[in-house]
Amino acid sequence: MSELFVCKIGGNVMDDEKALKLFLEQYQEISTPCILVHGGGKMATQLADKLGIETKMVLGRRVTDENSLKITVMTYAGWLNKTIVAKLNAIHVRALGISGADMGLITAHKRPADPVDFGWVGDIDRIDSETIMQLLQIGVMPVFCAVTSDGTGQLLNTNADTIAATVSSAMAKYYNVKLRFCFEKKGVLQHVDDENSVIHELTRSDFERSKINGSVHTGMLPKLENAFNALESGVKQVVIGPPDFQETGTKLIL
Amino acid sequence: MSELFVCKIGGNVMDDEKALKLFLEQYQEISTPCILVHGGGKMATQLADKLGIETKMVLGRRVTDENSLKITVMTYAGWLNKTIVAKLNAIHVRALGISGADMGLITAHKRPADPVDFGWVGDIDRIDSETIMQLLQIGVMPVFCAVTSDGTGQLLNTNADTIAATVSSAMAKYYNVKLRFCFEKKGVLQHVDDENSVIHELTRSDFERSKINGSVHTGMLPKLENAFNALESGVKQVVIGPPDFQETGTKLIL
Repeated sequence: MSELFVCKIGGNVMDDEKALKLFLEQYQEISTPCILVHGGGKMATQLADKLGIETKMVLGRRVTDENSLKITVMTYAGWLNKTIVAKLNAIHVRALGISGADMGLITAHKRPADPVDFGWVGDIDRIDSETIMQLLQIGVMPVFCAVTSDGTGQLLNTNADTIAATVSSAMAKYYNVKLRFCFEKKGVLQHVDDENSVIHELTRSDFERSKINGSVHTGMLPKLENAFNALESGVKQVVIGPPDFQETGTKLIL
Repeated sequence: MSELFVCKIGGNVMDDEKALKLFLEQYQEISTPCILVHGGGKMATQLADKLGIETKMVLGRRVTDENSLKITVMTYAGWLNKTIVAKLNAIHVRALGISGADMGLITAHKRPADPVDFGWVGDIDRIDSETIMQLLQIGVMPVFCAVTSDGTGQLLNTNADTIAATVSSAMAKYYNVKLRFCFEKKGVLQHVDDENSVIHELTRSDFERSKINGSVHTGMLPKLENAFNALESGVKQVVIGPPDFQETGTKLIL
């Protein structure tokens, strides 16, 4: 099987024009098929503020009401997705900006309102891996934003880490998938305030232990859950690290 | 050569939820390859108003400054494009929402600031017809919004009628292209206030005459110019009519 490189970048890279440029330029050097998944960054919150729409957060996650959904789709699928795609095509990387709604690539369902009503937030049911492969085969690099649909025409806001992990898992039957979650730190840190305490290899049992003793930063928990799930579903390599592909970051091990 | 059906819908259909639904449902019955191009509608202006951004118009056309460009891309490529695509996929039409920036499909240049500075508005230089054909060949219906890029990463607001006409012309070397411009009237009218005065066949020389004697409504002029250009570039059939494909509208003749 040939290799597929899936990468997810978060808001911190998106919000920093110079960092985004450096990040994207790395794709000029990569000849294997690639998929990019991007998060949102500050733009959605800033737009909501300007429009006087309150951003409701529960358990550190945005609640997506009707207005927030419009803002999410406008910023993620509109401005951010097309900006990235235009920049990639300018350096001759043949990028196609898409959402999960396009060609029904990612079907999700609205998360049940009980115990917490997160509004128009989607949990993924199905990935059309065959169509994604068709796109890769014609030399296209799919660039996913964090938007899906439920198959009846309803758009849904969907976590970008989960999209990256689920798409990677679905593609593992066709490719040796390498998945990289890029974020603002050098990797998963032993001590949250010490940038040099990167854990180079993290096993599932280390992770489970650290959940119990509280040594993993709460914000990292869902990311690591997604990452280990991908590894357990046949993804060959999962790394959590900085946007610079040369830096090794934290490699997950089963 | 097989047939390709290119259709452009304007803002009036986009703004009317029921009309849009009826329009899109027609695609369930079409088995030939299709391309859809959509305009903007009121959403961009409404969002600009809410944000307190003044919409500047010169000669009936929007001036696209930095803020307007963001609004245009957010609404056209974001909310409107993904809404249409989600609705089409819900009725099993395999739609892919794209802009001209995706895969460098449509390269444009910023319109010169002299005599009128329209800001970030693009005039089309090149269509990558081969990639569009690749998408059609894998059974995809491309849904274009009115956004392009200049090949250096700059996004540009581009007239949807022109995109429809130029894409149709570029595809004419591979397909027998039928192009339909859908708008709120039954066709080009002999008398602008009489809905029943549809001109069923309009020749180029009729059009040139009516430009001189002023009998064609000013707003129709650029649409008709685009339409005749397409016909002259090898597009097999061009019709201007209502969103209902059963109604014949105005057929253009060289």
